Amino acid sequence: MELKIGVIGTGAIGMDHIRRITYKTKGAKVVAVSDINVERAQQIAQEVGAKFVKSGEELIKLPEVDAVVVTSWDPTHEGYVLEAIKNKKYVFCEKPLAVEAEGCKRIMDEEIKLGKKLVQVGYMRRYDRGYEEIKEMLDSRKLGEVLMLHCAHRNPGVDESYTTPMAVENSVVHEIDVLRWLLKENYVAAQVILPKRTTSAHKELQDPQIVILETESGIHIDIEIFVNCHYGYDIKCEVMCETGMVSLTDPAFSSVRTEGKDFTKVSSDWKDRFMKAYDREIQLWVDSVKADELNGPNAWDGYVAAITSTACSKARDTGERVQIQLDECPALYNDSLVLA
Amino acid sequence: MELKIGVIGTGAIGMDHIRRITYKTKGAKVVAVSDINVERAQQIAQEVGAKFVKSGEELIKLPEVDAVVVTSWDPTHEGYVLEAIKNKKYVFCEKPLAVEAEGCKRIMDEEIKLGKKLVQVGYMRRYDRGYEEIKEMLDSRKLGEVLMLHCAHRNPGVDESYTTPMAVENSVVHEIDVLRWLLKENYVAAQVILPKRTTSAHKELQDPQIVILETESGIHIDIEIFVNCHYGYDIKCEVMCETGMVSLTDPAFSSVRTEGKDFTKVSSDWKDRFMKAYDREIQLWVDSVKADELNGPNAWDGYVAAITSTACSKARDTGERVQIQLDECPALYNDSLVLA
Amino acid sequence: MELKIGVIGTGAIGMDHIRRITYKTKGAKVVAVSDINVERAQQIAQEVGAKFVKSGEELIKLPEVDAVVVTSWDPTHEGYVLEAIKNKKYVFCEKPLAVEAEGCKRIMDEEIKLGKKLVQVGYMRRYDRGYEEIKEMLDSRKLGEVLMLHCAHRNPGVDESYTTPMAVENSVVHEIDVLRWLLKENYVAAQVILPKRTTSAHKELQDPQIVILETESGIHIDIEIFVNCHYGYDIKCEVMCETGMVSLTDPAFSSVRTEGKDFTKVSSDWKDRFMKAYDREIQLWVDSVKADELNGPNAWDGYVAAITSTACSKARDTGERVQIQLDECPALYNDSLVLA
Amino acid sequence: MELKIGVIGTGAIGMDHIRRITYKTKGAKVVAVSDINVERAQQIAQEVGAKFVKSGEELIKLPEVDAVVVTSWDPTHEGYVLEAIKNKKYVFCEKPLAVEAEGCKRIMDEEIKLGKKLVQVGYMRRYDRGYEEIKEMLDSRKLGEVLMLHCAHRNPGVDESYTTPMAVENSVVHEIDVLRWLLKENYVAAQVILPKRTTSAHKELQDPQIVILETESGIHIDIEIFVNCHYGYDIKCEVMCETGMVSLTDPAFSSVRTEGKDFTKVSSDWKDRFMKAYDREIQLWVDSVKADELNGPNAWDGYVAAITSTACSKARDTGERVQIQLDECPALYNDSLVLA
Repeated sequence: MELKIGVIGTGAIGMDHIRRITYKTKGAKVVAVSDINVERAQQIAQEVGAKFVKSGEELIKLPEVDAVVVTSWDPTHEGYVLEAIKNKKYVFCEKPLAVEAEGCKRIMDEEIKLGKKLVQVGYMRRYDRGYEEIKEMLDSRKLGEVLMLHCAHRNPGVDESYTTPMAVENSVVHEIDVLRWLLKENYVAAQVILPKRTTSAHKELQDPQIVILETESGIHIDIEIFVNCHYGYDIKCEVMCETGMVSLTDPAFSSVRTEGKDFTKVSSDWKDRFMKAYDREIQLWVDSVKADELNGPNAWDGYVAAITSTACSKARDTGERVQIQLDECPALYNDSLVLA
Repeated sequence: MELKIGVIGTGAIGMDHIRRITYKTKGAKVVAVSDINVERAQQIAQEVGAKFVKSGEELIKLPEVDAVVVTSWDPTHEGYVLEAIKNKKYVFCEKPLAVEAEGCKRIMDEEIKLGKKLVQVGYMRRYDRGYEEIKEMLDSRKLGEVLMLHCAHRNPGVDESYTTPMAVENSVVHEIDVLRWLLKENYVAAQVILPKRTTSAHKELQDPQIVILETESGIHIDIEIFVNCHYGYDIKCEVMCETGMVSLTDPAFSSVRTEGKDFTKVSSDWKDRFMKAYDREIQLWVDSVKADELNGPNAWDGYVAAITSTACSKARDTGERVQIQLDECPALYNDSLVLA
Repeated sequence: MELKIGVIGTGAIGMDHIRRITYKTKGAKVVAVSDINVERAQQIAQEVGAKFVKSGEELIKLPEVDAVVVTSWDPTHEGYVLEAIKNKKYVFCEKPLAVEAEGCKRIMDEEIKLGKKLVQVGYMRRYDRGYEEIKEMLDSRKLGEVLMLHCAHRNPGVDESYTTPMAVENSVVHEIDVLRWLLKENYVAAQVILPKRTTSAHKELQDPQIVILETESGIHIDIEIFVNCHYGYDIKCEVMCETGMVSLTDPAFSSVRTEGKDFTKVSSDWKDRFMKAYDREIQLWVDSVKADELNGPNAWDGYVAAITSTACSKARDTGERVQIQLDECPALYNDSLVLA
Repeated sequence: MELKIGVIGTGAIGMDHIRRITYKTKGAKVVAVSDINVERAQQIAQEVGAKFVKSGEELIKLPEVDAVVVTSWDPTHEGYVLEAIKNKKYVFCEKPLAVEAEGCKRIMDEEIKLGKKLVQVGYMRRYDRGYEEIKEMLDSRKLGEVLMLHCAHRNPGVDESYTTPMAVENSVVHEIDVLRWLLKENYVAAQVILPKRTTSAHKELQDPQIVILETESGIHIDIEIFVNCHYGYDIKCEVMCETGMVSLTDPAFSSVRTEGKDFTKVSSDWKDRFMKAYDREIQLWVDSVKADELNGPNAWDGYVAAITSTACSKARDTGERVQIQLDECPALYNDSLVLA
């Protein structure tokens, strides 16, 4: 039996997921599509043989929709997720789960009331083989305690819609989730340093930025976020432990020597770099929904990301070190860091 | 509509393909399974919800079987493939297509009689991203003409069933196919050098061996085949052109520094190294069967591999340089090297 | 004519320089040696055919000593350097030039009085080929403006004599000099972060530490200093510019594949890593003394390092961001950053 | 006391050695220079403060010349070396020691008569740190027996004076010496394969070529020699043993990421690649001459290289596998392979 999925939002990542589910994901198909851009939604609906539905709310209620994927405009995420829970349907929501931590709490409240987790948040880096190998090494404790992480998140360029706050909210939020998953620790403080600005950044964007996070046990994390680095899409993660270091390598499949140089290609964008991670994320989500047991990033993970990212934003605006304070983790999510 | 597949042969690679189609391949399912080892076949049939069928011939004739995968004992390949053609069913056959070139010709004769290609041979390296990038670079002609290739094919170890002739027939045959596909040229001569023998080889196995091939335009290829190299599964392909070199890189997702060393892991076996290539091979085969237009390695490619591998075997036994002579390529396969 | 050199101090680095000058440096020889450890000094004096002299002051005054190398206990550096200037002799002083910035100023005052630079300070990284290549790339401006640097300075281990302040004073001081030389900019602020402590550090040592520096134009520099990293001696320098990154590579001369790993060796200590840089430093110093025109790191560079390192120490002790304020550069040293 | 050296031949490598000895080699100086190009010889003699001498024979006889360096035209090597022996002077001779093996034998005869080795041949690869690390690994026997070597010797380009035979005589001869030193085995057979020719080669030059050597114990060696590879100077040496592989790495001191690529520079020429090896070779030669005990490549090594290179040339001309037969090693050179 194929899982019948409704997708709300047909922007770039929505389109990706629709095509992924249609052409790659085993045991699932897209049966309904909705977007405020009616024409675009109708077109893709037709391409993949799905029904076009006027509103997200309507789509969620369709009896033939088993599960929902939310890839709409960020501020609408919370509403659709709440609606899905109300209808007792599994929902995969692209990050952020809600624009603010309060929204995440409202979602958790509904899940707690229901006594069951229905929500998965789209943090796909946990499904990347490089991060998985790092996690395996850390879990083995062969290198002793983790002491420091040096990370970078570089994009070749962004357009004018990408402004200063998005460096944290849209980009670093991936590190916030995946590093906490690697370390099994929450953050306690954030600081942001604004280095010399690249001349490539438009005027509403401070680029690059350095985010510094500190965990419960005192692990130091520095994350360079630079979204106009020109040379490619480049993700760096080096974990220094007591007796050794484990790091992501740069993906390369072939190398070339010519004109005095020995080179490999740098990824051009996040789709290329994390394509396999996205594929696995959705496949495993479909499998877990069919098994009626979610195991990916959940609403609590979405809440922690929201709290942490708000602290980073405040740190950037004030220039100060900002404390990060989480609510107590509700029992429903107790296994969160352990399971992941 | 899912493509309904029958699988003949449930050894290692057969099991792999059955599970791949069941859990990963979009738009296909295994509906029937057959093997002389009845118990094993029944077990996997039950696991994936397929029917157990007593014989391959019977399986091929089942009306609910749309297409056939042949992963049985090598000497039986030809018979099942011929039977599939007779029943006008698409058939994916693991290498070799037939034990001898004559068998490949009998298969081509049947396809020619039918006027349609139904057969694909399991040369999965064409679906590896590294080889694809090399092909793209060669096709771009940015590095000028190809002059030489240096290749290696190393396995950590083999058991006593792997004897001297298998180095060519089972191992180098992958290079024979993928290099011809990269170069769009046939081979004209083969030579085999037997270096100092490793003490790890059992007495029926000369290991390592060096195979030297020469193409129509004079390109030199050397292939080290070493199946007891101990350290891992390692595939090397360096293509020297007039103004530069393009090579496979070694796959690695993370690196570690500890105890005075900076290291990455070497693949442990062919499944790990080429898992993605196998997945893509089968997915694209299913897609092409559903589109009623095959585009993978065909019976002619199987024939060329057989002729070339026979020449290599003779070169090994005689110590001489052996000429390689192909029949004229039948019209049905004329697009073979161009399409690939 | 060989340059006749007197060496004051026969500890580890002193011995190194004595042997280097004796067996490797062209156009120079050691003619006199002094140390408070008389026996050790006499032994090495005999080995290299030099005279043993009871005190540094006496050694400096010897008519047969053309130039002096100071490798004694840090607090004695200033006195010997002042004495050398008084005797109008060129003097190569291992870092630090003086324990405090005031001492460096006293040295500059004497040079200014004399109207001539006689002092070179032992910052050998400027002579490392990796740093030179980075400098060449930055000077070419092919990658645009420099925005950020990520550095690391790791030692396999230290003994109990190495305490918390030495991380800045003995280790990071190398980065302080070489990065300023690369960037041709002074520092304006320092911050120090103390991450989770390794269990390998003895109780008087906070290890690791993160030093953050900011330059005049706003370039951000982070330097991890970790002197008990166990795995080897490892120096990292990544320079992010507007359109690209240039980095040190890890030195390796051979690689090995065995037991499932592909590895290169990590340097075991600073002697191994920077041996060639030390050799070039001393050779070029000898050449420049004979040409009567110094061009290496001078007393002003020593002063800037002292001021900057004092600011880092204060930042570490207070947990605050500390401003760095330099005196105006005396005319004698005006060419300092340009020349280097 | 400085070793007083006379240099015969002031072409490219002669000039290099004169400047190396003058500006870098400890404990040696050039006191006399000779060349048929009188003007060039006089000029360099003046630059380094040496005497110009009209003929090599005259230079050798000068009482103030302690040792001789022969870097003249290949066919004159033998004569000068014999003259040096006659005058009981140490002589460093660039390869080849003599144009033919017979010449090497005449030189050995004179040394044997004298009962002392005075001759060192300029095979500088033995002094390269990469090859030394490979040797150390092989000598440790950690990887088991050596089975195969894959080597490459690539130059960016050559002029019209470089013809087909020089690929063996001038280029591969370096591999012939250094691999024998690594393996401590002589060669027993040679074969040469001529692949597709690069369009960059002028008409008197077959380029590339593949030389295949076989050692006494059956080790297989393949060497690609390609002197118009365009992209740089590139030396490859991979040694496959029973349980692992050890290889030269490509020298690089910095890496750059820009415009979608991550690259390191390839050496531009042999001077850049082997500069340190040349420096060490000459320094150690000077040290050993002063200690009156040579330990570098000797006349027997020159003889073996000549015999082997002649066999390669014959193999190239005939297309056949050619046996390599050495005379018995005279007692004076018995320690040759062991010592190295």
